[in-house]
Amino acid sequence: MTDVTHGPGAATSALFNPRSIALVGATDKSGWSAATLNNLRGHGFAGPVYLVNPRGGVVHGERSYRSLAELPEVVDLVYVMVPTTAVLEVLKEGAALGTANYVVLTAGFGEVGGEGARLEAELVEFAHERSLTVLGPNGNGYLNAAASITPYGLPVGTSLLRGSVGVVLQSGALASSVLGFAHARNVGISLLTTMGNEAVVTLTDVIDYLIDDPATKSIALFLEAVRDPAEFSRVARRALLAGKPIVALKVGRSALASHTAQAHTGALVGDDQIVDAAFRQLGVIRVRSLEDLMITAGLLAEIGPLPGRRIGVVTPSGGASEIIADRAEDEGLLLPAFDDRTVDRLTEIVPPFATVRNPLDVTGYVLIDRTLLGRSLEVVASDPGVDAIMLLADIPKVAPPDPAPVLENYRANARRIAEAAVPVVVVTNALTDISEFGRTIREETGYPHVVGGIEHGVQAIGAAVRWTETRARVLRAESGVARPTVAAAPEGVSEATGVWAEHRAAALLESAGIPVVPAEHVHGEDAAVAAAERFGYPVVLKAAVEGLGHKSDIGGVRLGLAGPDQLRGAYRDVVASVPAHDDGPAGALVQPQRTGGTELLVGIVRKPDWGLTLAVGLGGVWVEVLRDTSLRVLPVDADEVRQALDELRGRALLDGVRGGEPADLDAVSTVVARIAAFAESLGDRLEALEINPLLVSGSRVEALDALVTWRE
Amino acid sequence: MTDVTHGPGAATSALFNPRSIALVGATDKSGWSAATLNNLRGHGFAGPVYLVNPRGGVVHGERSYRSLAELPEVVDLVYVMVPTTAVLEVLKEGAALGTANYVVLTAGFGEVGGEGARLEAELVEFAHERSLTVLGPNGNGYLNAAASITPYGLPVGTSLLRGSVGVVLQSGALASSVLGFAHARNVGISLLTTMGNEAVVTLTDVIDYLIDDPATKSIALFLEAVRDPAEFSRVARRALLAGKPIVALKVGRSALASHTAQAHTGALVGDDQIVDAAFRQLGVIRVRSLEDLMITAGLLAEIGPLPGRRIGVVTPSGGASEIIADRAEDEGLLLPAFDDRTVDRLTEIVPPFATVRNPLDVTGYVLIDRTLLGRSLEVVASDPGVDAIMLLADIPKVAPPDPAPVLENYRANARRIAEAAVPVVVVTNALTDISEFGRTIREETGYPHVVGGIEHGVQAIGAAVRWTETRARVLRAESGVARPTVAAAPEGVSEATGVWAEHRAAALLESAGIPVVPAEHVHGEDAAVAAAERFGYPVVLKAAVEGLGHKSDIGGVRLGLAGPDQLRGAYRDVVASVPAHDDGPAGALVQPQRTGGTELLVGIVRKPDWGLTLAVGLGGVWVEVLRDTSLRVLPVDADEVRQALDELRGRALLDGVRGGEPADLDAVSTVVARIAAFAESLGDRLEALEINPLLVSGSRVEALDALVTWRE
Repeated sequence: MTDVTHGPGAATSALFNPRSIALVGATDKSGWSAATLNNLRGHGFAGPVYLVNPRGGVVHGERSYRSLAELPEVVDLVYVMVPTTAVLEVLKEGAALGTANYVVLTAGFGEVGGEGARLEAELVEFAHERSLTVLGPNGNGYLNAAASITPYGLPVGTSLLRGSVGVVLQSGALASSVLGFAHARNVGISLLTTMGNEAVVTLTDVIDYLIDDPATKSIALFLEAVRDPAEFSRVARRALLAGKPIVALKVGRSALASHTAQAHTGALVGDDQIVDAAFRQLGVIRVRSLEDLMITAGLLAEIGPLPGRRIGVVTPSGGASEIIADRAEDEGLLLPAFDDRTVDRLTEIVPPFATVRNPLDVTGYVLIDRTLLGRSLEVVASDPGVDAIMLLADIPKVAPPDPAPVLENYRANARRIAEAAVPVVVVTNALTDISEFGRTIREETGYPHVVGGIEHGVQAIGAAVRWTETRARVLRAESGVARPTVAAAPEGVSEATGVWAEHRAAALLESAGIPVVPAEHVHGEDAAVAAAERFGYPVVLKAAVEGLGHKSDIGGVRLGLAGPDQLRGAYRDVVASVPAHDDGPAGALVQPQRTGGTELLVGIVRKPDWGLTLAVGLGGVWVEVLRDTSLRVLPVDADEVRQALDELRGRALLDGVRGGEPADLDAVSTVVARIAAFAESLGDRLEALEINPLLVSGSRVEALDALVTWRE
Repeated sequence: MTDVTHGPGAATSALFNPRSIALVGATDKSGWSAATLNNLRGHGFAGPVYLVNPRGGVVHGERSYRSLAELPEVVDLVYVMVPTTAVLEVLKEGAALGTANYVVLTAGFGEVGGEGARLEAELVEFAHERSLTVLGPNGNGYLNAAASITPYGLPVGTSLLRGSVGVVLQSGALASSVLGFAHARNVGISLLTTMGNEAVVTLTDVIDYLIDDPATKSIALFLEAVRDPAEFSRVARRALLAGKPIVALKVGRSALASHTAQAHTGALVGDDQIVDAAFRQLGVIRVRSLEDLMITAGLLAEIGPLPGRRIGVVTPSGGASEIIADRAEDEGLLLPAFDDRTVDRLTEIVPPFATVRNPLDVTGYVLIDRTLLGRSLEVVASDPGVDAIMLLADIPKVAPPDPAPVLENYRANARRIAEAAVPVVVVTNALTDISEFGRTIREETGYPHVVGGIEHGVQAIGAAVRWTETRARVLRAESGVARPTVAAAPEGVSEATGVWAEHRAAALLESAGIPVVPAEHVHGEDAAVAAAERFGYPVVLKAAVEGLGHKSDIGGVRLGLAGPDQLRGAYRDVVASVPAHDDGPAGALVQPQRTGGTELLVGIVRKPDWGLTLAVGLGGVWVEVLRDTSLRVLPVDADEVRQALDELRGRALLDGVRGGEPADLDAVSTVVARIAAFAESLGDRLEALEINPLLVSGSRVEALDALVTWRE
């Protein structure tokens, strides 16, 4: 029995590890009732299970009790299947007796709104008042396979395998498919939970438990909504540091799906790009299919992280080698050339007509020499240039008439894999079920977990490598590299409102040591000319008025003014372009005209759910037409910004095209990280801070225009 | 027995439909020999199978013959497993007796080079001389499941299902995986062929057969190389017109895979982007995995084409609905809102807590009311706004104790599906094997083919819809829309060599009625000024010399010349920039300066394998940095060009951004199609024709610069 008594997971430890259970609302008329009892009895729950039905009598062929009070003991967990309006009474009765843990299967609460939502609020209030732990309502319960505790309302049959993947689902209807697929691929489960409405126990509570649970090695999530991003970020980070990979199938990528999710759970689905960015930063592996969810989580649970991108590939098929090479490139994996010594040793092993290279095709001669694949694997595993091995090997579905030599060969390969200096991932050609004979092979020979098919297998290997890299980067960042420090926010910011246009925004940035193009705020043509002479022509002239978000749209910006006459004319035009204002003449800004370099857009926006987020991209049409920006959730360091810049499709522009000067990416990244840190220091009133453009020319980085929006 | 006696497939019809077979080189020592005999005996081959071994005696427990001449009859097919150097003798012996068809399993020919290649050349020569049909060498043979004729050298076991997918593999090693996966998904095969070296019978010969074969409804290919693109295009087009979809897993996308493929087959792998473009034009569905290959081909064979993108989705799960919505968007499918009448009728059927929308989640209430899904399907199928239906429904793996009500429900749904006004694609949640009970359901109730999992299923639906659209487009084009006509190529072109720079290239284009910016070829400053005055300032001046590929790199182009003084100075500079030349003073081109508009690049290049190909993209950094071009293999019509433009990532630039004038896309497409047709008319000496830029401003389309390269 898993009993997590320390750490954040302790809160739900008692919920998932009861020694006695009462099913309240048990009745022969309900399939849920029968399934729950069957699951508990059929999957080895060691403690007593009591059936409670107000009419008493025999239920499911057993004695039932009329109330919790009638039971011979105070149970650890009450599983509630009574009508919606009766649920609270059950909780009250149980709480009075001293039971702290509940699973509520009953629906009709928050998910239907109105009266249901009111009943749910009452339930939540009572639970908090009495410190009750309640899973659901509107959820099917859980399967703690690790501890053989399975209060779960749908038939599971024989498909539940015990193992090390923790599964948390925000859609109960998917549980059967997930279990069926996991069984087909021989992926074992530690705990599977369907969340229901998350009225009391939330997704993140369960993740906390799984992080602390020694039976769990990786965590698979089906997410309709990340309801509390800050809390999700906390547990995701905790999981990453604890070395427990989280794999998530998060729906709502399409506009349509986000409607569906709303209809289904009443939850708001956040902006999908932000989810993507946040997951990448947190090391949460995002997948798009149920297959990838369970195959990736299974690989990470059974084989563990993969230490690097350099994969040695050993196969018995040229065609498969080529499919693997294509998919490896998609996933950013490297198939390095083998070391000379490896080539020599392989040349002695493989048939003369084979070509020795990575990916290795040992040829169909495996049909004649069963040991060929294993001996080749052993050689490749000793190559100093590979971080991990992908071994392509199908598993027979049906036992041959004499299985002994087959099993002996698997035993030999199991030993080679166990002794290899690098992790070995065994992958089949295509995704089909592992048969009973396949399970036998594993059980009898110690052969490792087998990943289902090249397509999903290479994807999972890529994800495992990226997860390992993200973890290393976060650990490095934890262990010392300081985030940029900035001066405290200037006074007055805490009461700021409205839009601060360029001159105030620029002053704010300058106060934080962020490089801003020089500018003078002038009133009158003469002052403008005097300023221009100090900078030298050509100059730029901009209207200077609060709240003027898009100056250029109303003719408030004039570029490339070559001399005093042009400047004077421009001053008159620009000031005329500005709407009348109470505070007297608006004046204008004079700046030196910059030429060359590359324009970036740096935008920091507060999202209602994820907080401050950074968008960085190439300015102008690149942003407008291609929406070529990289997103990050704050905080970020210069490293993270550098990575964001590297993701841009127009990235090569920063290296200088057509003779342009290459941008000093370290300098840019440092400035952007400083801008981000400064934005964080500005407090809750900050809605948005946009620098457009941030001009980059070699190592010179300068904000040419800025806008700060405060909460009204 | 399938006997195709007409059409291009007739050549291989006898090969795939023999009435008697001899296995030459049969021996107890060879697994291939045993497997081939087992396959023939075990899969119902009705004719005689003779074993031939030079030593005679008992082989595989049967009488063997010493030679083909000893056999009691002249066989229709000889299956050859003798050593490499003895193969030709077998062919000679068979040919002398009158046998025309051979499968050569023996390896060691062209794929090993040297002496092997010489032996293969001899074999090919003899085959051509005697009109023999030879499959291989270095291939395992074929499985004509439709006709129960299975001369195939690897064990197949029970996994061969008869059906309507024709499979052609350029890698024999993948056949077992393909068969295993097809069996797991209950996808039946008409004919599976492993090609080997394609010394005589080629990939396209087999495709021709499958197009004519009434047992085949779709064709699945594993391709390492398209060895003869013209021939491949011919059969692909024939298949499209015949309504037989081709699905292809073509490897060699990565640089690495293309090396692998070379090593494996000695074939050159072409430029992958061209393959992609050609496949799209030909309606060949390209997939990236074995799973997608067989699932897509299976869907098309079993359910057929899908008439449109508007999909009605019926599921018992909110979570699954959301995954489907996301994946549908990826695939360009539409999930339209249901018609009011559909909503009303569904509202009467589904539980009150369900939300009636597309995708429809009829809820977990299906566990209580088995008919809920089928009745909802019936309503959605009558919605006038959907072209096809995706029904999400898992198939039980294990028969329940009383299967009768389950089967009755499947029978009712099978009837609803058969009677639906639109095609219904049944898809499971995740990709697992169909069990024996699953097969029973299909056999006993007429329930349709079930597609494996949302991930691959939605991909397959998207592919089927796109195939149907491509076919309709090609049929439309066939039935009348004329390709642009151009004047015959000017004289002298057939002897052209080297590079024709702008003034000659422009004249060539003008001769074909392609709009070119006006220009005058002038010698001397005075002539330049006179020309400029005719055009009006500002003007452009360009050096005019043959072979000057990149004028701007050497200072040979001057833009925006505002008056005669600037022009004279520019003339001196430009002429000085040009390398010394034998033909006297080079002179320069004067053109009016165009402003505004969008610059396109139109490039036509001859590729060694696919012939003339068109690349169209946005000019400048869009091409240089993003490589944002669309490719097409010629010929193209304006429709196809229009589609190519629509694929550009920077497509929105053509609609006008920041106040620019939107481009008239019909006008652009017409001009580009005319350029392409003109390039085709220029004959084999044309290497490349590039127009960069083609300036588009509203409906004005003008080539501003051009370059033609001829074969040396």
